[in-house]
Amino acid sequence: MSQVKDEKLGFQGREKMDWARRHMPVLAQIHERFQKQRPFAGKKIACCLHVTKETGILVLALQAGGAQVSLCGSNPLSTQDDVAAALSEEGISVFAWRGISNKDYYQALNRALDVKPHVVIDDGADLINTLHTSRTELIKGILGGQEETTTGVIRLRAMARDGALKFPVIAVNDTPTKHYFDNYYGTSQGTLDAIMRSTNALMAGKTLVVAGYGWCGKGMAQKAHGLGAKVVVTEVDPVKALTAYMDGFAVMPMDDAAKIGDVFVTVTGDKDVVRQRHFQSMKEGAILANSGHFDCEINVSELKGLSTKVQRIRDNNDAYRLKNGKTLYLIGEGRLANLAAAEGHSSEIMDLSFSDQALAAEYLVQNAKNLKPGVHELPNELDQFVARTKLDALGVKIDQLTSEQEKYLESWKEGT
Amino acid sequence: MSQVKDEKLGFQGREKMDWARRHMPVLAQIHERFQKQRPFAGKKIACCLHVTKETGILVLALQAGGAQVSLCGSNPLSTQDDVAAALSEEGISVFAWRGISNKDYYQALNRALDVKPHVVIDDGADLINTLHTSRTELIKGILGGQEETTTGVIRLRAMARDGALKFPVIAVNDTPTKHYFDNYYGTSQGTLDAIMRSTNALMAGKTLVVAGYGWCGKGMAQKAHGLGAKVVVTEVDPVKALTAYMDGFAVMPMDDAAKIGDVFVTVTGDKDVVRQRHFQSMKEGAILANSGHFDCEINVSELKGLSTKVQRIRDNNDAYRLKNGKTLYLIGEGRLANLAAAEGHSSEIMDLSFSDQALAAEYLVQNAKNLKPGVHELPNELDQFVARTKLDALGVKIDQLTSEQEKYLESWKEGT
Amino acid sequence: MSQVKDEKLGFQGREKMDWARRHMPVLAQIHERFQKQRPFAGKKIACCLHVTKETGILVLALQAGGAQVSLCGSNPLSTQDDVAAALSEEGISVFAWRGISNKDYYQALNRALDVKPHVVIDDGADLINTLHTSRTELIKGILGGQEETTTGVIRLRAMARDGALKFPVIAVNDTPTKHYFDNYYGTSQGTLDAIMRSTNALMAGKTLVVAGYGWCGKGMAQKAHGLGAKVVVTEVDPVKALTAYMDGFAVMPMDDAAKIGDVFVTVTGDKDVVRQRHFQSMKEGAILANSGHFDCEINVSELKGLSTKVQRIRDNNDAYRLKNGKTLYLIGEGRLANLAAAEGHSSEIMDLSFSDQALAAEYLVQNAKNLKPGVHELPNELDQFVARTKLDALGVKIDQLTSEQEKYLESWKEGT
Amino acid sequence: MSQVKDEKLGFQGREKMDWARRHMPVLAQIHERFQKQRPFAGKKIACCLHVTKETGILVLALQAGGAQVSLCGSNPLSTQDDVAAALSEEGISVFAWRGISNKDYYQALNRALDVKPHVVIDDGADLINTLHTSRTELIKGILGGQEETTTGVIRLRAMARDGALKFPVIAVNDTPTKHYFDNYYGTSQGTLDAIMRSTNALMAGKTLVVAGYGWCGKGMAQKAHGLGAKVVVTEVDPVKALTAYMDGFAVMPMDDAAKIGDVFVTVTGDKDVVRQRHFQSMKEGAILANSGHFDCEINVSELKGLSTKVQRIRDNNDAYRLKNGKTLYLIGEGRLANLAAAEGHSSEIMDLSFSDQALAAEYLVQNAKNLKPGVHELPNELDQFVARTKLDALGVKIDQLTSEQEKYLESWKEGT
Repeated sequence: MSQVKDEKLGFQGREKMDWARRHMPVLAQIHERFQKQRPFAGKKIACCLHVTKETGILVLALQAGGAQVSLCGSNPLSTQDDVAAALSEEGISVFAWRGISNKDYYQALNRALDVKPHVVIDDGADLINTLHTSRTELIKGILGGQEETTTGVIRLRAMARDGALKFPVIAVNDTPTKHYFDNYYGTSQGTLDAIMRSTNALMAGKTLVVAGYGWCGKGMAQKAHGLGAKVVVTEVDPVKALTAYMDGFAVMPMDDAAKIGDVFVTVTGDKDVVRQRHFQSMKEGAILANSGHFDCEINVSELKGLSTKVQRIRDNNDAYRLKNGKTLYLIGEGRLANLAAAEGHSSEIMDLSFSDQALAAEYLVQNAKNLKPGVHELPNELDQFVARTKLDALGVKIDQLTSEQEKYLESWKEGT
Repeated sequence: MSQVKDEKLGFQGREKMDWARRHMPVLAQIHERFQKQRPFAGKKIACCLHVTKETGILVLALQAGGAQVSLCGSNPLSTQDDVAAALSEEGISVFAWRGISNKDYYQALNRALDVKPHVVIDDGADLINTLHTSRTELIKGILGGQEETTTGVIRLRAMARDGALKFPVIAVNDTPTKHYFDNYYGTSQGTLDAIMRSTNALMAGKTLVVAGYGWCGKGMAQKAHGLGAKVVVTEVDPVKALTAYMDGFAVMPMDDAAKIGDVFVTVTGDKDVVRQRHFQSMKEGAILANSGHFDCEINVSELKGLSTKVQRIRDNNDAYRLKNGKTLYLIGEGRLANLAAAEGHSSEIMDLSFSDQALAAEYLVQNAKNLKPGVHELPNELDQFVARTKLDALGVKIDQLTSEQEKYLESWKEGT
Repeated sequence: MSQVKDEKLGFQGREKMDWARRHMPVLAQIHERFQKQRPFAGKKIACCLHVTKETGILVLALQAGGAQVSLCGSNPLSTQDDVAAALSEEGISVFAWRGISNKDYYQALNRALDVKPHVVIDDGADLINTLHTSRTELIKGILGGQEETTTGVIRLRAMARDGALKFPVIAVNDTPTKHYFDNYYGTSQGTLDAIMRSTNALMAGKTLVVAGYGWCGKGMAQKAHGLGAKVVVTEVDPVKALTAYMDGFAVMPMDDAAKIGDVFVTVTGDKDVVRQRHFQSMKEGAILANSGHFDCEINVSELKGLSTKVQRIRDNNDAYRLKNGKTLYLIGEGRLANLAAAEGHSSEIMDLSFSDQALAAEYLVQNAKNLKPGVHELPNELDQFVARTKLDALGVKIDQLTSEQEKYLESWKEGT
Repeated sequence: MSQVKDEKLGFQGREKMDWARRHMPVLAQIHERFQKQRPFAGKKIACCLHVTKETGILVLALQAGGAQVSLCGSNPLSTQDDVAAALSEEGISVFAWRGISNKDYYQALNRALDVKPHVVIDDGADLINTLHTSRTELIKGILGGQEETTTGVIRLRAMARDGALKFPVIAVNDTPTKHYFDNYYGTSQGTLDAIMRSTNALMAGKTLVVAGYGWCGKGMAQKAHGLGAKVVVTEVDPVKALTAYMDGFAVMPMDDAAKIGDVFVTVTGDKDVVRQRHFQSMKEGAILANSGHFDCEINVSELKGLSTKVQRIRDNNDAYRLKNGKTLYLIGEGRLANLAAAEGHSSEIMDLSFSDQALAAEYLVQNAKNLKPGVHELPNELDQFVARTKLDALGVKIDQLTSEQEKYLESWKEGT
């Protein structure tokens, strides 16, 4: 009952998941415990996630814990068809293929919801949004939801603010082991990887403009600089802008950055960050990549409007021939580049994020009755558990506070 | 009625403050406004702060705003005697000199409190602690307090938790423009500066052990690495440890780090981080510096106990000749090195911290009646104001959200 | 009369070369001049080079200058079949395809030599070596040769030392604009790109062992570190080892490094740098990549000997299942990874190298009669011309010495 | 018969030299061997060097080897008076004090030469220049000379080119273990240290302009960036400029850099690099430091000419109040900042340079008869010895080529 591109790709998908499993020791350990304890026995879980080898390891862990799992993609270009096929073989209900149309995308969301889930795991809040708009009949069966990404959490907080959110959602994204590692280390390497794979451009000496200096942006700036790029940061928040300045980066409005950038990366969570007037002032050959969740950060339709022709010159790299005679190169159609034009976060990163997701699902099932509708944090001890287990797996030992040191931290009577 | 080392140093102190004023444009602008609006008319403010040229600019701004100000030092080794003299000339009641004894230190605290302050500005919570233990009669007159440093905030939160805190305190330290810039950029440069000034040791190739990977520790690691050191991090928190690991640093317990470190820097806020068994396993010539607030992070008395002789080989650098035949070098007697052996944070950094302090004092005076006893945050708009004004002074322009972009961030109905 | 994989790929090859031409402004300018001045009229040039889009731009420039050009590949895995097809269409005699067998490889060398070249352009000295061993009859017609890579120059200097080299060869590799940029910036990015493309492994936190700290190794260490890796360097030269140490990297013998490395990169120019006893002590999951010219730096046959099974788990990534139960991953069969598993140096880099080659060919044709058999340097003014033209194309302006400054540098009579 | 500032400072000088000796293990080992073998028995050596604690360790090693040593300073501001006193006590003939006048400086040179040296060790070629201009009568007794710095070597090569150099001189500066470590690691840390000591300015976020991108300049750029500065490079050589560009730094002419720099550092070896028109376009508060050998890189007399007043606001920091209303700060009077305003290279660095000097002196004495007048290199095996001994002292082990690997490097017959 799955819908995937090609059932025969399953073997290759399993190979990929073998690599992932070897690089996700924390989730592997949780999988093992779930298998014994069956925390999800009798529960159904609908997931809307990038269908990658790492997601495969997560949903198999949920399944091992007793859950019946359905899965749709959270972005039209991020599904790995071989993994989708392998998961389908393993009994997951998969509705996802790379290059899915907009219409089919929403249909897939609905198919995933058709299982009447107790828990929904979302990445961008499309699933939860659909539940609250066109599938409201399912809400009463929902224990809670989980959200993977910043953009989704922003949407959910807006819903909560408006009183529209009808069940508790764990903002897994906000967990330190999730958002910091994922955003700072994952997105930055993945985006640079995407740019190199789709252009082979030299980073050394390039002027790389990063729009947004949140964790994604800080990571991008750091790593791009590490490959020899001169980094320019654009921001709307003065504290973040001042941070970028003191980190040694040039800070300026996009109107100025547009004129000097060789490469542009958007990681803001907002729309129209690079738009018509910016395209018009760019240098010949500028490269454009978005790594924000939605494909609205670079206004692609305005870019098309300025062009006489669009040529796909290689995978994930479209040359926009502008009326002003210049060529701009757009990576992965403006969809989040690290997934569309590379392979998404490394297994090492997703081990953290998806261990958080697995533990959040268990926490939801156990505690949903005590959680009010709204956005909730993952309890800190689960986060600490994930980090501690990861360090163990890496063979890294750390210090422990002595009881005297603990006492000192609690006290306020000792002085200078 | 001040007590300073040498009144005749005033001229030199004013020269130093001239440099500071030129590098503190935000506070200079606040000074100007205070002069017109006199928000502190009739109010008395007691400050316990490192008596540096930048502190001078702060207390003169408070004075310009109508306050009567008393000032004592917050650390025995951090007072700049020339600045103390200059401030005394300007009418501030100063009770501070470099090398003050422990007994005189507490006497100075009391002298500063003798003015019967409405507001207390603290750095390490010694003033507030004294108010709650031996000067309780003054509490009824207090509108509120302000705390400058992490260690102080930890103490105050412990007091609040115990129900012991009797008036509202603004945790100025927790303001983004304070703690992040100060801890990350300020402490790191200052500590390296202190080590270089007191040893002239080459940083390139050295193994530098940073105890603690909070903002101070992250900054230390980053900058030490930037000068060519191999960085080793010790931590007790698994998430921070994992962060250090992924930032490319070696992570291990202090027992292991002690054996390989050439330079040790403690920035944990806890005591006994480097202690007897660590000293005993260290390499010949290891250099020890603390940049945590209190001088308990490196257990100096245990170090003395292991030594046959202690020689001051140059300013702020004591050679401990150990019974095991090795020599360890302690910077600035184990007191916070960036102040004791260098000059504390640059004026550029203190412009942010002390603008926060100035605005916090104004906020306290205007809003104290609405604030309950306990630890409070500085309102975010004041923080944003400070960052924005700093950017202006630096000539840095940033973007502004369009109304469409603002609306997008608020909405939750748009999808993939 | 070419031999390529698929003539129909020509269109795609021309698209790729369009990108290259846009990113090779110096060579484009030389092409234009050659077209007017025809310096190679009546001359034949045989090239043994990695058949990439950038090589395409070089051989078309030589052709534009009047040369008849033959081209074979310089490595079995580095030929881009679409570029080969496109060049064949343009009238170049191409004998190259990706995955060529060892026997066909040497046959291709001979086909390229069958044109009876006046000039040979080599990358690894295979062509020149063949001329001196099995095709000695052609030597009398040779004006001179040009060598692209360090490994080749080492071989040629050995030949010259033995009195075996029969014609002048320009060591284009030794030109600053060639070897420094190519080795330092090109190989480092390309190798990291190759590792990421073929594994998607996270670099942050990984221990990356670089064997060799020449320019390639220094670049590798710098960029790997820039992506968050902890770098370990192995060396045989004490000065280079000391440099690595002071650059903040750990330095140790391979026997020790083998036990702690997550990723290994060899860039030494020597053989057996990673061999049986190293493989046996490696950690589960270690990744092995060579970016030295020849595939002997990692002893692949010893690796095979230790394995029960070798599985290609994805493009350019073979899992060696060791008898000791561990898995090691070998990138691109141990052939130079940046070409075998990524796309070789960026066009921006090859613009420098191949402008040097184009100018060297012109210089050889004009000056061969004055050059004795042996290894020669490219005249410095050609190197300066290439750098200056590149800066112009990048829009970078630099200072010029005043006549007083020039005079000062020449004089020795001014003192303190 | 010495001339020093204050004989009573000897005790302190010896303490300083104790630190130096502990951090100069290679030179200490050479000292020990010299003591046994007495290679300089009966020989006189005149040194013109920065009189620092490290120089003390060198001249004592020469003395231990049997030499009679005279010593004058090589820069008016670099003498450490306590070290001068200590060396005088040890029987070295010292003619040096900090703040020596120009006239006394040249007199000191002559006093040092009055011993009628067999070997002269120079730093800037002032001693050798004096020999060739006003003390030609001494030349016949000279076995040879040694030169410590780039500027001196440039002067000596100019002399050799003009046929003016009358004895062999070892360009110790050109030895890898000297110039690379000294220039790249030493000058960079020392200059930043000097700027921080004399200003306490925050480096994070500052725009730091480096004039010259040789090894000193590359080191400066790297370390300044490591402390958070944005680096701008000015150059006259296109290859170096292109290198700076690809290292991720902004490259532009000084006319443009002058307008945006917060801090300027000159390391070119040429004069008038920063001059009148640059001063006039600088920002309020710009900081100027020279770390080239001579004080002509920043044209201080032109700076004075533009100023209404010069105030020493703190040690080594003069405020130039310009007629245009701005203030520029000059570090250490424009003399090489790392020595004038900090303490010169760390002992760890000078261990390499001065081991080279000690071995060069021995080599000269043993081989002078075979060396023609002119500039000579230090034999490579001595350089390798120094590096290898340093690694041993640091506890760093490295690999050794196997005989197969050595053979491979020699051969040219193996192929792809």
